[in-house]
Amino acid sequence: MKAVIFGNNQINVMETQVPGQKQGEALVKVYMAGICGTDIEIFNGYAEFSGTPGHEFAGIVEAAPGYPELLGKRIVADINCGCGECRWCRHGDARHCESRRVIGIRGINGAFAEYLSVPVKNLHFIPDSVDNLRAVFAEPLAAALEIAQQIHIKNTDRVAVLGDGKMGLLAAIALKHYTGNLLLAGRYPEKLAIAEDQRIDTVRIGRKEPDKDIARRLGQFDMVVEATGSPAGINTALALVRPKGRIIVKSTSRSPSQIDFSGVVVDEIHIVGSRCGDIDLALRFLEHRWVDVAALVEKIYPFSGFTEAFERARQKGSLKVLLDINDSGTPQSNSF
Amino acid sequence: MKAVIFGNNQINVMETQVPGQKQGEALVKVYMAGICGTDIEIFNGYAEFSGTPGHEFAGIVEAAPGYPELLGKRIVADINCGCGECRWCRHGDARHCESRRVIGIRGINGAFAEYLSVPVKNLHFIPDSVDNLRAVFAEPLAAALEIAQQIHIKNTDRVAVLGDGKMGLLAAIALKHYTGNLLLAGRYPEKLAIAEDQRIDTVRIGRKEPDKDIARRLGQFDMVVEATGSPAGINTALALVRPKGRIIVKSTSRSPSQIDFSGVVVDEIHIVGSRCGDIDLALRFLEHRWVDVAALVEKIYPFSGFTEAFERARQKGSLKVLLDINDSGTPQSNSF
Repeated sequence: MKAVIFGNNQINVMETQVPGQKQGEALVKVYMAGICGTDIEIFNGYAEFSGTPGHEFAGIVEAAPGYPELLGKRIVADINCGCGECRWCRHGDARHCESRRVIGIRGINGAFAEYLSVPVKNLHFIPDSVDNLRAVFAEPLAAALEIAQQIHIKNTDRVAVLGDGKMGLLAAIALKHYTGNLLLAGRYPEKLAIAEDQRIDTVRIGRKEPDKDIARRLGQFDMVVEATGSPAGINTALALVRPKGRIIVKSTSRSPSQIDFSGVVVDEIHIVGSRCGDIDLALRFLEHRWVDVAALVEKIYPFSGFTEAFERARQKGSLKVLLDINDSGTPQSNSF
Repeated sequence: MKAVIFGNNQINVMETQVPGQKQGEALVKVYMAGICGTDIEIFNGYAEFSGTPGHEFAGIVEAAPGYPELLGKRIVADINCGCGECRWCRHGDARHCESRRVIGIRGINGAFAEYLSVPVKNLHFIPDSVDNLRAVFAEPLAAALEIAQQIHIKNTDRVAVLGDGKMGLLAAIALKHYTGNLLLAGRYPEKLAIAEDQRIDTVRIGRKEPDKDIARRLGQFDMVVEATGSPAGINTALALVRPKGRIIVKSTSRSPSQIDFSGVVVDEIHIVGSRCGDIDLALRFLEHRWVDVAALVEKIYPFSGFTEAFERARQKGSLKVLLDINDSGTPQSNSF
């Protein structure tokens, strides 16, 4: 089969063996995969991962020794593969297992390949009404919904989402289910328009606009979601949040942030890191069409166009680039 | 009366008028005042405060127009003087009032003077069994107890307090009432001994010991209180906290911290800023002798020795330096 490997600042598409299954693993044929900001960070050296990246995907189970009921099922997957024995795994939260493998990120090959092996316990069935294109969004949408699992949001809370990238847009789309008072602040009119189409209020902020000026213009927020992808985004969030307010951090930048903690102390701010979420919850949102994720697709490429697709994903301001890996028949244009 | 003014990197003890009282204010004769790290920061330019500093004090009401019942009462005070009208003040939390004055820190003269004027609503009566020396600790002890007001601490939570300065020691002394699994990590054997005397487990960490080595040696904590006073302390806290754990930040350093937020995101860490607390709660702890704060006194100086006292307070590793401002008769040595 064909599989992508990163190495020496190069993308290599190799011919390799279809992976075998250990006890409790399923062979998944990949239909559709998404390129995430983390994949680009991995290409740049993040997490020192060597192997096949790709952790946003939808596929079908082609083999699952001991689990015949899984055969032929369309699935998405939790990306965190826990040890099964530590206190985290015993409580059903493999996301924080210290010896976890993470699909396409740490210790286990990912979905930029025709096939991959996935622990059976990580599989989630895709409802029939959710097509592959939308199912790929289950993983990042779950990460966006995770915010409301960590923090109690009241309908009257004034919430700002900073950043109109993929995570910022998904966070705004997800959080409009929790507050009636949401503002998405971003830089790209065409991306803010996607949110406007989903009846989310937006505002444009300038690339060099000082945080104080932004705060003067937008006022104070009970909660700010930092999804700019920039190490300086936390400072904008701190300028916007009210005393005793909450900042949810989604950006994983490789550069350190410079922050003045005396403001955090004096105003008793809560800062909460937020990562992966509940895949089944995300699938339910997709099944009921509570969110429209198709509008977030930049372009769908065939697997043979991976290099081109990756370049497109790396362009500043690009939306979700998808790969139709095994020619699943999803439309190749944006006319879905 | 005599009052201290900071200016041009100098301490000036001036002769000035006893302050008059506006509606709702009381004239307080200062018995005892404490020098806090914030006073040293103010001397160095923090908060751009011009006036008389000093916000930890115990005194007696000598005038209170319209409030005869206050005359002759020994008091401590909430340092945050709110506008009385904003949403914070309406909910009884002047600490976050945007136009607040803060005694000895912002817009209102403090307690390094023979007398000061304090809003009547900020006064708290000192129980008879609490002497002036101990009452001065009500303000910083309230700040230490604030941690357990912001965060639910379980008796089984493994908690580390970083820093054996005044706030670190007070935090450890306060938090032993909330968890049976507390460790104070500091640099000074003589200060760790004070905590040991109060049956708190301690550990010494080296000034240049890398955070990773400290983490390997001490293991993981459910909660870490950052009270080092150093901008790098937050990184030690991040190294020690478990996934989904909580860091309470007490340090208000004027220098920015450099932190890697990707760790905060991946491990879904909660970081909580923590400032002033509930004075009455602190007075109750002092009244019942649940805590022994007298052990934290470095030395008591007469007011005429202010400059010397301030130098002593600025020395690295010094404990609480007190000023016996109106010769209240508290012992002048450490033999209390």
